[in-house]
Amino acid sequence: MGFKVAKDSDLDHFAERLLDAGVHVDVIPAGEEPGVGRKIRFNTPTGHMFDLFAEMELSETGPAVRNPDVWIAEPRGMRATRFDHCALNGVDISASAKIFVEALDFSVTEELVDEASGQRLGIFLSCSNKAHDVAFLGYPEDGRIHHTSFCLESWHDVGHAADIISRYDISLDIGPTRHGITRGQTIYFFDPSGNRNETFSGGYFYYPDNPRRMWQAENAGKAIFYYEKALNDRFMTVNT
Amino acid sequence: MGFKVAKDSDLDHFAERLLDAGVHVDVIPAGEEPGVGRKIRFNTPTGHMFDLFAEMELSETGPAVRNPDVWIAEPRGMRATRFDHCALNGVDISASAKIFVEALDFSVTEELVDEASGQRLGIFLSCSNKAHDVAFLGYPEDGRIHHTSFCLESWHDVGHAADIISRYDISLDIGPTRHGITRGQTIYFFDPSGNRNETFSGGYFYYPDNPRRMWQAENAGKAIFYYEKALNDRFMTVNT
Amino acid sequence: MGFKVAKDSDLDHFAERLLDAGVHVDVIPAGEEPGVGRKIRFNTPTGHMFDLFAEMELSETGPAVRNPDVWIAEPRGMRATRFDHCALNGVDISASAKIFVEALDFSVTEELVDEASGQRLGIFLSCSNKAHDVAFLGYPEDGRIHHTSFCLESWHDVGHAADIISRYDISLDIGPTRHGITRGQTIYFFDPSGNRNETFSGGYFYYPDNPRRMWQAENAGKAIFYYEKALNDRFMTVNT
Amino acid sequence: MGFKVAKDSDLDHFAERLLDAGVHVDVIPAGEEPGVGRKIRFNTPTGHMFDLFAEMELSETGPAVRNPDVWIAEPRGMRATRFDHCALNGVDISASAKIFVEALDFSVTEELVDEASGQRLGIFLSCSNKAHDVAFLGYPEDGRIHHTSFCLESWHDVGHAADIISRYDISLDIGPTRHGITRGQTIYFFDPSGNRNETFSGGYFYYPDNPRRMWQAENAGKAIFYYEKALNDRFMTVNT
Repeated sequence: MGFKVAKDSDLDHFAERLLDAGVHVDVIPAGEEPGVGRKIRFNTPTGHMFDLFAEMELSETGPAVRNPDVWIAEPRGMRATRFDHCALNGVDISASAKIFVEALDFSVTEELVDEASGQRLGIFLSCSNKAHDVAFLGYPEDGRIHHTSFCLESWHDVGHAADIISRYDISLDIGPTRHGITRGQTIYFFDPSGNRNETFSGGYFYYPDNPRRMWQAENAGKAIFYYEKALNDRFMTVNT
Repeated sequence: MGFKVAKDSDLDHFAERLLDAGVHVDVIPAGEEPGVGRKIRFNTPTGHMFDLFAEMELSETGPAVRNPDVWIAEPRGMRATRFDHCALNGVDISASAKIFVEALDFSVTEELVDEASGQRLGIFLSCSNKAHDVAFLGYPEDGRIHHTSFCLESWHDVGHAADIISRYDISLDIGPTRHGITRGQTIYFFDPSGNRNETFSGGYFYYPDNPRRMWQAENAGKAIFYYEKALNDRFMTVNT
Repeated sequence: MGFKVAKDSDLDHFAERLLDAGVHVDVIPAGEEPGVGRKIRFNTPTGHMFDLFAEMELSETGPAVRNPDVWIAEPRGMRATRFDHCALNGVDISASAKIFVEALDFSVTEELVDEASGQRLGIFLSCSNKAHDVAFLGYPEDGRIHHTSFCLESWHDVGHAADIISRYDISLDIGPTRHGITRGQTIYFFDPSGNRNETFSGGYFYYPDNPRRMWQAENAGKAIFYYEKALNDRFMTVNT
Repeated sequence: MGFKVAKDSDLDHFAERLLDAGVHVDVIPAGEEPGVGRKIRFNTPTGHMFDLFAEMELSETGPAVRNPDVWIAEPRGMRATRFDHCALNGVDISASAKIFVEALDFSVTEELVDEASGQRLGIFLSCSNKAHDVAFLGYPEDGRIHHTSFCLESWHDVGHAADIISRYDISLDIGPTRHGITRGQTIYFFDPSGNRNETFSGGYFYYPDNPRRMWQAENAGKAIFYYEKALNDRFMTVNT
């Protein structure tokens, strides 16, 4: 997963802070990925690789900037408007989250905690006004992906995505529903490769001074699926 | 369950047709139910009692008729705008449906059929432009009610009803989802007495010349829950 | 404008009632219009021609009837789901409405009245659960069409229609807004021939026992455009 | 208008940068405004007063943080969820915008420009992922407020706000409509004091690397009201 930083010098700044946090950093030269400038790459204790970069070419048409219309071509299919976030599985999620907070200025917006043991089962992190830009979920194996999420405009479009999923016999995981965590409205489905994808709408508008929201493990069902208030076995699987 | 007919003489007309169809009819004098005129009462083979009546008093405020606003007081709670339909369980649902079609001018809009045995598992009937005004669902016992349904304005309000249900710990059955049958958008919940209620939006606009829609028993899941494509055990229970 | 009746013998029935009401009736043989059975044709005092027919061929694909999906192909463009109604201009609108009520069993759902003179400026008629199937609007010349209206699913789709209209430089008349009359949510635009079209959503669900709603002429603005509470000159023009 | 900064030391940091930019700064001691910590106050060349502060007490109930529900009490009235932005009128809007960019790290997201004269008629600034947090609009007099805006969840709620406005005879300015600038969906109304208020939904999710969007003065109508493509005189007035 990659994050675009504001300017090239930020790459050096964050590389230094990652090193200070004891994280190994690789520098990937510009052009290794077509259209992308030099990259700073690191791995988290949960076995996930992240890239930071400052430059990426726009598409040929690019966004409209001069008297721009609401869209150039109407959104199609499920009407995803952008990538939203990833949820990643692994063992030591606190260690992974710590890097994002200490070296990269993310905030923990919410967490799911087993208060008896003090163990954190889920940690949700934001570097924007989104309720999460990345999440880490406890799991016995490292390096797994729970899902990749794409942004929809509204609950209306979540319902429309559900119609598309049923009409074309796409494998549904769960939804349309709402998350307790983030308050986002959501539907999950599996693509033909078996990867879980989410289309997601809403979620509160996060500011860094918002108090951290905490969910007790015994409310995990409501935390994840606010309407069903229960997890299902299928949702507990991860992508390889 | 009751239906209001257009004028008092229709009660005699329908009473005669019910008798012609071999259905016993009771006449209930005006006022037995406060504010309601005389009623024609009959029972279906599935053990459900129905009333027809032509007169019912309006509430004191009544509907606004002079330069009426969009509403007098904003809809509250789940924002139900009116009663929509009932689904009723019993053994010989074909016999019950036959009465509605032959004596009362209802149309069968959809049916769920076990093609191997020819048995009808569900019959959906309309006397309006609604996709159903009453439904009969096969069940080993007569006289049961599966659910009572209330009309919402939109999918937005179905989502809002879901929020209400979770926020106030109302017992959720299933939803928000869509029906294959009727195409309606829906959420089911149980009231404190254990009765299943539905809040329901949309559904196609039915005309009597629409071809009857037929669902095969093996697609019952999709017919009932278009997104989940499966029935759950809880939904198979009935109200007593 | 044409209306489909339930069965062929209804054509004779309505022809007789039209004749009884003093309305001249032409019988158009089947096939004059491809795929359409015989037609009963009459003209209103406001100079509008109407056809009644009982038979019309379905399109080759027809509607899905066996385990039908929510749609075969996703609605496109403004996502109109069906024709909704016409509004027609002329001088003696009461005489035209009278035919629909007395000979064709329509109900007057709403009217716009100049109480001082007793003159009706607008009459809205329904033969279904729709708030109107046809409307007559007072105008100094007969035989004019104010607009043709197409049904959308929701306010969301009215907003989407507005995006389409602006994005493709379609000539907007007014909207998105709501009507006081019918409570429908609406946007009007002109097609390249200069005809006013409406895409329309909602409106209350009409039953024949609903009290007639009456708007005073001095509230015509609110009656027509519930939000703006004023008519604009452009909207007062009619199609030729 | 005030902005909350992340921590108390940021107040000193921004005070210094404001001074460097030649802007006079007043320090207001904590408690001058109940529940608010010390404030840095400055005036813009357009005659608008701004406060920065780092501390503000939460309300007694505060936001729910422990297994939080979607809301504690359902949003009421027009269902505004938070303050969104202000639009402010004055003469030298470029000078005001320059302070926000150079001393306070805002970005210019969009501008409305008279290309012939090079004059900027409107400048929209963001310090978040919102399409604007504050806007300056050219006007012959300084110190004026065009409108104060409150955030709604969706286009559905913009329509609902319109119903409220009409139902309770609140003075409508314009809407429901969409802005070209920000792409937000909107309705404006006047409160009993004559101040223009906006309820606003959507708008794109801004990132600082987004290219600046530029509207030509001859497209001001579309820039402001994407559907109507024209300004009205009423909207050109300002609050005193």
